[in-house]
Amino acid sequence: MATGLMKTIGAGELRSDHVGSVVTLAGWIARRRDHGGVIFVDIRDSSGIVQVVLNPEDAPASEETLHGLRLEYCVQIEGSVRPRPEGTVNPDLPSGAIEVVASTITVLSPADALPFQLDDRTDVDESLRLQYRYLDMRRSRMAENLKARSQAIRAMRRVMDDQGFLEVETPTLIASTPEGARDMLVPSRLREGNFYALPQSPQLFKQLLMIGGVERYYQVAKCYRDEDFRADRQIEFTQLDFEGSFWGQDDVLAVLEEVAARVVADLRDAPIELPIQRLTYADAMARFGSDKPDLRFDMELIDISAVFASTEFKAFAGVLGEGGSVQAINAGNLALARSGLDAQVARAQELGAKGLVWMVVEDDGGLRSPVAKFLSDSEKAALIDACDGQPGDTLLIIADRTKTVRNILGQLRLDHGQPEGHEELAFAFVTDFPVFDVDDDGNLSPAHHPFTAPADIDEMVTSPETAISRSYDLVLNGSELGSGSVRIHDPIIQAKVFEVMNISSEVAEERFGWFLEALRYGTPPHAGFAIGIDRFVSILRGEPNIREIIPFPKTQTGADPLTGSPSKVEEVQLQELGIQIRPEVLEAWALREAEQQD
Amino acid sequence: MATGLMKTIGAGELRSDHVGSVVTLAGWIARRRDHGGVIFVDIRDSSGIVQVVLNPEDAPASEETLHGLRLEYCVQIEGSVRPRPEGTVNPDLPSGAIEVVASTITVLSPADALPFQLDDRTDVDESLRLQYRYLDMRRSRMAENLKARSQAIRAMRRVMDDQGFLEVETPTLIASTPEGARDMLVPSRLREGNFYALPQSPQLFKQLLMIGGVERYYQVAKCYRDEDFRADRQIEFTQLDFEGSFWGQDDVLAVLEEVAARVVADLRDAPIELPIQRLTYADAMARFGSDKPDLRFDMELIDISAVFASTEFKAFAGVLGEGGSVQAINAGNLALARSGLDAQVARAQELGAKGLVWMVVEDDGGLRSPVAKFLSDSEKAALIDACDGQPGDTLLIIADRTKTVRNILGQLRLDHGQPEGHEELAFAFVTDFPVFDVDDDGNLSPAHHPFTAPADIDEMVTSPETAISRSYDLVLNGSELGSGSVRIHDPIIQAKVFEVMNISSEVAEERFGWFLEALRYGTPPHAGFAIGIDRFVSILRGEPNIREIIPFPKTQTGADPLTGSPSKVEEVQLQELGIQIRPEVLEAWALREAEQQD
Repeated sequence: MATGLMKTIGAGELRSDHVGSVVTLAGWIARRRDHGGVIFVDIRDSSGIVQVVLNPEDAPASEETLHGLRLEYCVQIEGSVRPRPEGTVNPDLPSGAIEVVASTITVLSPADALPFQLDDRTDVDESLRLQYRYLDMRRSRMAENLKARSQAIRAMRRVMDDQGFLEVETPTLIASTPEGARDMLVPSRLREGNFYALPQSPQLFKQLLMIGGVERYYQVAKCYRDEDFRADRQIEFTQLDFEGSFWGQDDVLAVLEEVAARVVADLRDAPIELPIQRLTYADAMARFGSDKPDLRFDMELIDISAVFASTEFKAFAGVLGEGGSVQAINAGNLALARSGLDAQVARAQELGAKGLVWMVVEDDGGLRSPVAKFLSDSEKAALIDACDGQPGDTLLIIADRTKTVRNILGQLRLDHGQPEGHEELAFAFVTDFPVFDVDDDGNLSPAHHPFTAPADIDEMVTSPETAISRSYDLVLNGSELGSGSVRIHDPIIQAKVFEVMNISSEVAEERFGWFLEALRYGTPPHAGFAIGIDRFVSILRGEPNIREIIPFPKTQTGADPLTGSPSKVEEVQLQELGIQIRPEVLEAWALREAEQQD
Repeated sequence: MATGLMKTIGAGELRSDHVGSVVTLAGWIARRRDHGGVIFVDIRDSSGIVQVVLNPEDAPASEETLHGLRLEYCVQIEGSVRPRPEGTVNPDLPSGAIEVVASTITVLSPADALPFQLDDRTDVDESLRLQYRYLDMRRSRMAENLKARSQAIRAMRRVMDDQGFLEVETPTLIASTPEGARDMLVPSRLREGNFYALPQSPQLFKQLLMIGGVERYYQVAKCYRDEDFRADRQIEFTQLDFEGSFWGQDDVLAVLEEVAARVVADLRDAPIELPIQRLTYADAMARFGSDKPDLRFDMELIDISAVFASTEFKAFAGVLGEGGSVQAINAGNLALARSGLDAQVARAQELGAKGLVWMVVEDDGGLRSPVAKFLSDSEKAALIDACDGQPGDTLLIIADRTKTVRNILGQLRLDHGQPEGHEELAFAFVTDFPVFDVDDDGNLSPAHHPFTAPADIDEMVTSPETAISRSYDLVLNGSELGSGSVRIHDPIIQAKVFEVMNISSEVAEERFGWFLEALRYGTPPHAGFAIGIDRFVSILRGEPNIREIIPFPKTQTGADPLTGSPSKVEEVQLQELGIQIRPEVLEAWALREAEQQD
């Protein structure tokens, strides 16, 4: 580290090599033992920790200064490095073989009593941590997370730079579009009553860059989505966004493999298995009941409909007769008592199942199950065979519409198979997503933005519910890291897609006219992707949520407990923007205030 | 360049070495000569240009395709590389020794007739260029500017990364502060009637990072300032923002020298003179009449008050008697006729001068000037001596309050001395800025944000009008590239500064309470800087305004002619945010609409 004028070396950089040298340190008091005469303090800075010995005889500071030192005081120390006395070497600390004997100590800034302990062992309420994020950052967990985030972004940039991508900044005050119901708006001062929107992604601008001949674009882009907060979302978030011209899906996936490999190498110091496994959406759903399968474990869904093709068991027969399916997972040796097995049924019902059939393979090769008596011996044998059932294995079976079966078994698979933490990393590309999501009533809704290329425009017109798009996701350990697609570059196909999506040409013109015009000037075929950096780093750091790797995150209600945003602003500010608070909101405020005064 | 699946090499990468090889190109038709039979086209992609020969006999495309090719069609071509026939080699083109003989040509996308010519010779109205920015980007000027911007940012990051700075993203949805009259606001959906603000800079968050122990922070930060637009401002702009702990001014300037050197090396392939010249604000004002002096030329201000200490010339004597000064610049041999000299007087008046005295040094060493007759021979001689006047030189003299004199002569100095363009680069650090700006009536207003450290807090209290702050600017060729300061790290000094700035402790607490609290937890001494990337790159590229190096800029009224932002949004969107357009704005809209229908 470049040390600047006030220190000569980082505290954590000191080693036995430095014994005998005179150093100037600056940092914080992380620990302090006052033995009456000699005081030992641990000095922490961004490079690590070193032990400092303050002996009033060597360090001519006043007794008051020395014994007044408190945790997290910011101090500057001059001293000389010496080996620690035998028996006091700390092998867990990189600087643990030495200590610094202070000749002077200067308090640069005192510290108030802390709102919480800064050691990593203390469990602190998250809202308190966020309110004092600047103290939270002094803890090694957050300090390491911030470093990891910086390293990850640097690794990504290195890949993009090496491959000749141009970093281009797209605007963040853009036009709002009517389907941007979740756009965050910014009132304009110069054009009263008009608004900019903050971008949900740089999608159309990066496509314009392709039209503009940039050919290779990337950006670490701040994006905004005014969603209801879930555990893993923030209203502002950061993506590695990239796009290439004269590109197809394989070009994108090749870049993603390099990005994933480089980031993991830098953060985990480990290689990843290349090429990254690819599976289609259809395969992923059939085998794992999820479009973001966790491939760290098998426990695949097994379609056992054929086993029960002519079963007497009415529950199965009925479902199969209606075109549904019977599927199972082999959850392994769960060793559950009857109450535990019943809990599985409850869990499946909570997930939307009408019921769940459990079967335990017995030592004699038979099956223990409430429904065993309804099954023929050959069915049982075929079932055990299909599920590779070993004595002790618990089979969990759902019979329902295939989509429902997959969703539920996909979730039960995670319940029973998913490892804690993220020691192992299993990347996957999921490709060939459908063009439309189909809800339970058969209604279609576009699964992607309307600039996504369909695999076949004719198929999209004639069989929309089964049509495939040229889109793909990157998945890691069961989480979607990002998604991308081949884009439409032909304005005629773009017009047809709008039509199939029930967007009239008038409406399309009104919303995207400027973009449709751009498509008419020699648009190259192009494709791209966006990776959510927050989630990627949180998985690599084994953190349970993305707030842990965002320097100053918002809470789940979009608030910042540190600065108090969002907040009320003065009427005069709004006046200049040509807007005002709605009367009903003002009334609600007044009402709440009155209630609080009662 | 990584080429992807649809091309094997960039058009501009082809050289004589490639003769005989078969290549696949993809790009745009930049030029086209149809000689009836054989057609020559120039293919342009992001790597450059190559000439392609389309002979209907070699390329089995239909006559219709070949002769239907138009400018800016996006095409893919397979062909073989051959030397150009003798006499047709183009030495101005890197690929000018060869050409590609096409065997197939595929039109990937046709192009409509262009709204303007894409060659760089055609002068196009800026609003048209912005409306079709994606076409403008295909011109080499914009394409090169985008590359330069990407290179500059990469060079900056390399310096920061090499020096162990951590890249940290600070939030962009932050708390609005009451003096943030120019804050851009973002209404919150979850807390109706409350607002976030977009950051004018990451100032307080980067200070929090220092408190958090990060020690070395940087960020290429998007900032927002809702200013009235001037030629060189945008509502969103980009800065290299950095900060260091245990740092003083010299640490910051050392980093800036490396940044400047690296960026210039990468964009200009030339070294800069190091160390960068430093001068105090007081020096800069006295010598150059500007706090952002253009040091590419001398023409310094000369204080000739002493020459006229006992002059009979009433205009000078009066000013000196009132404590003002008489100062000159030697504008060199302007060879102006009387009308030209009168124009100088008019220009000075336009700049706020009561008058201007011009004097031309004559061949015999005398002075030609309307006021010559009022001056004694010894005054004339001393004046010529002080100004190093050579026969033919024009001296421009202002007598007024010193501040006024400097402002006007500083501007006249630029009028007469400043070079066109930016071939030469003259960096300077200007340091020791005053704490307060003093207006003509003696009123004080803070010259910097209230977190800037004063050189001496006691001086700030007792002599605020002359007190110096620990702030500094980086200047290039007469433009301010950025500014920074040592920050206050002591909450007691911070409180005193608020007091001198007439911010009561109640108000300070209300506005910045959370920050003042943070200062109380062992805040390290720290300092930092922010460089405006847009301006830096525009100077290095010799561009007259920053819009030329911003991919998608706004116009001077904050509008985007391409996408139409800012724009009206639907009432339902506003409703969800708890805001509405003010009735008077709606009325004004209705009125305007009615007028337009008349």
